Amino acid sequence: MGDDAALFAPRVGWETILTCDWFLEDTHFLRGKHPADAVGWKCLARAVSDIAAMGGRPRCFLLSLALPQTLTGHWLDEFLGGLRRAARKFCCSLAGGDTTRRREILINVTVVGEVRKGQAVLRSGAKPNDVIYVSGRLGEAELGFRLLRSGETLAGAKGSLLKKHLYPEPRLALGQWLAEKGLPTAVMDLSDGLSSDLPRLCTASGVGARIEKAKLPIVSTAATKRTERSDGLQLALNGGDDYELLFTVPRRNVSHIPRSFRGVPLTSIGEITRGRAIVLRDKNNREYELVVGGWDPFRGAK
Amino acid sequence: MGDDAALFAPRVGWETILTCDWFLEDTHFLRGKHPADAVGWKCLARAVSDIAAMGGRPRCFLLSLALPQTLTGHWLDEFLGGLRRAARKFCCSLAGGDTTRRREILINVTVVGEVRKGQAVLRSGAKPNDVIYVSGRLGEAELGFRLLRSGETLAGAKGSLLKKHLYPEPRLALGQWLAEKGLPTAVMDLSDGLSSDLPRLCTASGVGARIEKAKLPIVSTAATKRTERSDGLQLALNGGDDYELLFTVPRRNVSHIPRSFRGVPLTSIGEITRGRAIVLRDKNNREYELVVGGWDPFRGAK
Repeated sequence: MGDDAALFAPRVGWETILTCDWFLEDTHFLRGKHPADAVGWKCLARAVSDIAAMGGRPRCFLLSLALPQTLTGHWLDEFLGGLRRAARKFCCSLAGGDTTRRREILINVTVVGEVRKGQAVLRSGAKPNDVIYVSGRLGEAELGFRLLRSGETLAGAKGSLLKKHLYPEPRLALGQWLAEKGLPTAVMDLSDGLSSDLPRLCTASGVGARIEKAKLPIVSTAATKRTERSDGLQLALNGGDDYELLFTVPRRNVSHIPRSFRGVPLTSIGEITRGRAIVLRDKNNREYELVVGGWDPFRGAK
Repeated sequence: MGDDAALFAPRVGWETILTCDWFLEDTHFLRGKHPADAVGWKCLARAVSDIAAMGGRPRCFLLSLALPQTLTGHWLDEFLGGLRRAARKFCCSLAGGDTTRRREILINVTVVGEVRKGQAVLRSGAKPNDVIYVSGRLGEAELGFRLLRSGETLAGAKGSLLKKHLYPEPRLALGQWLAEKGLPTAVMDLSDGLSSDLPRLCTASGVGARIEKAKLPIVSTAATKRTERSDGLQLALNGGDDYELLFTVPRRNVSHIPRSFRGVPLTSIGEITRGRAIVLRDKNNREYELVVGGWDPFRGAK
């Protein structure tokens, strides 16, 4: 720190993982709705999630921050508090960065991680007949964001949904376990919603997929207003920011995948297919094309 | 590429250098004045300059780019052309990144470099009595920017000044040579102007400095309008974006520093002193405090 560049001592026998993520006011968060400490936590968590998907361990990060002069007091303190908590939680230390002044809050985070040579899992290895899994329940973060916009606070019964949106916890332990055991053929994190991210995994792997609608671990909308209750499937398919893992497992390895990992459910939701079609099958065996309706950063914050 | 994160195989016996830099419309460049290919070249060059200062070699970079929809055609092609030329020139390959849409052009570049273990030179090692050197001529890039704003083109006699502003060449070979020979006690690159950057080196090292005004390698203003001609000293002290190296050398090593390195002049401009004062001495031995007047990103583009 202090120099323009940071030095990092890589471990022999490990590869370095590099990832960077924008976190921009009005595109990824709202200054008036998102607490500053959640902005600090989340800008690091979402980049760390890319390390988790590869089976890696975070080592350090660079923070590029542009901020209006008026936010350099209390807002910045809170932001740094959230960032520090996340850095401790993910064992990922601040190594450097770049700061400037700007009308809007602009954040870019680069995370450097490590994975044992040969153990990194890419999104391009899925094969026909592999079973598709997801961790956690899908749509929770999106529902949390709806609650945030309607003025709910962390204290209430809906706090866990809000927390999932504001303070996501990348699935580092799960990603490392999967990579170390060599169980999956492909892994990626769910940042934009299943309907956006599954096609990316399939395109990278040159395969298609069939998802069983009945198997999807859909967010529970019981605690929410009636208008949300019928939305579970849409939230699960299209909700962004879950930062759960999506992974594919060859049938010979399926018996090694537990029902849950450290309290996080692991659910098989379908299978990889030949061809390029990505379909959703209902309980009557009718198949529908999966339409991309997930988080689209080009539309701005929803 | 294709995955959210990139894998990088570090070499045994080398340390990794990490650096990131903002390059923002209206703060660091002007959409209407700076050609897109110069924006592409310069966003990488300025981050690579931090690697040069440490004595490192660039390996790869991550590009975070936010762009208005209207610029995704010709502007983006030109931008990527300039970026590709710089990447080839600096032996630094694109490893990944993040893109989004935005009203303004936002760029953040992370460069990963390597330096042999123990050879990295920081800015914090300067000692009293060390001789202070700079490479190149100071103020050229700032004068080039003035010419750009007044409508000059690369084709004319002033092209080399414009080129220095638009397509800076980080002093990689010089930085590596200095580090390998172990000659300097501290190195940094001049990105914001001598009057801003020298105090940073002095603060990091806990020392002061005395600069001899007559020794400063000042940009030649002969080719410019009369109004610029008296500005040479101000340009040399306060002009930003030169990306020359500022370094300190113990007296025992001074005989090893040539007058020029691969055509770039190396000039001793003063010495490191005890205490914290940073002064400019004129030919009559009068001393003036060096006032910070360099590039200040908080003021926006000058």
